[in-house]
Amino acid sequence: MNLPSKERLYLDDLKPGMRFTTHNLKVTAEQIKAFADQYDPQPFHLDEEAAADSLFGGLAASGWHTASLTMRLMVTSGIPFAGGMIGAGVELSWPAPTRPGDELHVVMEVQEVIPSRSKPDRGIVVVRNETLNQQGQVVQVMTAKVVAQRRPV
Amino acid sequence: MNLPSKERLYLDDLKPGMRFTTHNLKVTAEQIKAFADQYDPQPFHLDEEAAADSLFGGLAASGWHTASLTMRLMVTSGIPFAGGMIGAGVELSWPAPTRPGDELHVVMEVQEVIPSRSKPDRGIVVVRNETLNQQGQVVQVMTAKVVAQRRPV
Repeated sequence: MNLPSKERLYLDDLKPGMRFTTHNLKVTAEQIKAFADQYDPQPFHLDEEAAADSLFGGLAASGWHTASLTMRLMVTSGIPFAGGMIGAGVELSWPAPTRPGDELHVVMEVQEVIPSRSKPDRGIVVVRNETLNQQGQVVQVMTAKVVAQRRPV
Repeated sequence: MNLPSKERLYLDDLKPGMRFTTHNLKVTAEQIKAFADQYDPQPFHLDEEAAADSLFGGLAASGWHTASLTMRLMVTSGIPFAGGMIGAGVELSWPAPTRPGDELHVVMEVQEVIPSRSKPDRGIVVVRNETLNQQGQVVQVMTAKVVAQRRPV
């Protein structure tokens, strides 16, 4: 969907099947190594030679780096949730690794919209997100339960 | 468990019910904001005043920051998987936010050990990880499917 730049969406505005596509974000080998150095210091995320001998067969981003870049894309150019994007829980898988030079984008699809029974000002929106590289290969699939605000009456 | 410092564990060494506890890691407000600035630029992760007015009621780390710190703890002082810790998929929830000054550690428990039918050199170990703060409050629950190597014959 294309939205006016400052429009924010409430739970009431979202319906199953709505799709949103983010901008692109390019990832360098330096960024992959810097993230890994801080958060996932394993040889296959830090060093090309060690990675060549690993299950990955070459330098690969930490799955947490892919998840964090996905979050950046969703927050800056995904569904503009009123009140922000706050996850209650997620399921994640990484069908393929993110590689140096990859350019990622995220396709978000609303799956369910569940108003809270106990809290009339909010609810849960279930969103399925696919993170794809420049070749259309899926590097991450996430299903997220997002805490969304109801539109004020 | 306490293990000799260089011992690596194969799928064959792990049994359901085994528990491992990582070291501690302290998180500062500066680190919370720096992570958010790069990967989750939302006001409640970036600015104390904005956070006070949000659902979080004060500065809170991005859930992806908590997940990334959890990974650091698991990789540096958790189950010493031979071949490293490679996740095929995870489920995550964040029952409470990570706050500035929190000192986190992770308790890992092996839940299932599943040798691959098609690939005799590996399998999946299902691990449930709880990330706790210094008060014993659970800030993240993760169930991870880890690709683990079989012990070479």
